[in-house]
Amino acid sequence: MREVFQTELTDVQTRLIEISESVTHIMEKASEAFLKSDVALADEAIALAEANESRALTLDELVIRILARQSPVARDLRILVSALRMSASLERMGALAGHIAAIARYRFPGSAVPASLRPTFEEMAKLDIDLVRRVSVLLKNTDVDLARTIQAEDARVDELHRSVFDVVLADEWKENAVFTVDVTLASRYFERFADHVVDISTKVSYLTTGTWHDLD
Amino acid sequence: MREVFQTELTDVQTRLIEISESVTHIMEKASEAFLKSDVALADEAIALAEANESRALTLDELVIRILARQSPVARDLRILVSALRMSASLERMGALAGHIAAIARYRFPGSAVPASLRPTFEEMAKLDIDLVRRVSVLLKNTDVDLARTIQAEDARVDELHRSVFDVVLADEWKENAVFTVDVTLASRYFERFADHVVDISTKVSYLTTGTWHDLD
Repeated sequence: MREVFQTELTDVQTRLIEISESVTHIMEKASEAFLKSDVALADEAIALAEANESRALTLDELVIRILARQSPVARDLRILVSALRMSASLERMGALAGHIAAIARYRFPGSAVPASLRPTFEEMAKLDIDLVRRVSVLLKNTDVDLARTIQAEDARVDELHRSVFDVVLADEWKENAVFTVDVTLASRYFERFADHVVDISTKVSYLTTGTWHDLD
Repeated sequence: MREVFQTELTDVQTRLIEISESVTHIMEKASEAFLKSDVALADEAIALAEANESRALTLDELVIRILARQSPVARDLRILVSALRMSASLERMGALAGHIAAIARYRFPGSAVPASLRPTFEEMAKLDIDLVRRVSVLLKNTDVDLARTIQAEDARVDELHRSVFDVVLADEWKENAVFTVDVTLASRYFERFADHVVDISTKVSYLTTGTWHDLD
């Protein structure tokens, strides 16, 4: 029984890693679509985000079946409950990346990114892609300590998110409302994406150390 | 054992209802703060949203303890997993209402709502408050059929959300970027709030009918 259970836990882990890697691809395509006004890439990202959602739901069903069959307690139970939460975060991350692609698609053939904010969004995109890659590493090898790096990168994303508003709300901002709306929403999506990475890393670190930082 | 379990399930239900009622208060205060530029109400909403988050986390811990002690299967297991998901939705709804209050606070003593969009936001706020009240009714009495009403109200919120962009992106829109940013984000928060109500009602209806519409 224990052996079957270990196999099932490994299956859950493998699927979480697959979803995390799929979210990485979605964010890579969505960011490039957004920064380069590439409508074909935007379409790919949007389609992948939909597939990602059903992959997350399938994983949830698997976790519930394992809970029913194995009645795990203690750490095993925590792992499975955490898997449900990580799956929810990864599903949202895919959806947020899809929203970023949708902005690019909507403005095509124009760009959604005004010149004055291009370096900001390039850095945000780079950080978000880096963050979701770290999630895959964490899920593969739960005893690595990436929590500090992830928190620092998330703090930088928050800073960039606030700086977007500083630019948009300054007297020098002369772009029209279309740009204002696009950059406001895109910045929010990049920022929420990074928040979910922090949530996931908190859960992984909880499983490793037994300390649930959310509850501190 | 079964009797203890029923008591525990009732406790979970009671806490979900309490959280849902707390979210109703947060949204009532946040909407009024936003529409009337009332900074005292905004502060109350923000403080309540923080308390709401820890209430949701406490409920999650309770659910995990019940899962560990009772090893439920079938419908009982589904109820508890759904409780975790509903708790996550209610936590986010409180946070989103808190964000709406934060916009009001940020613009005080000015208003975040331009005259041209006041009726739209009044209707969105009314719908969101109505939707979260329906969640409390659903949680108290899971066999009521509110799914259709909730879906119709959510569709109307989506429509209003899109109409905000129609107004902001029209040539007639002469407000400055501060208003554009505020209404873009506020509209997004109202819209996401309603989405979570749909998610919760799907879960309740699944528990009643056995059909998980998400998976259709």
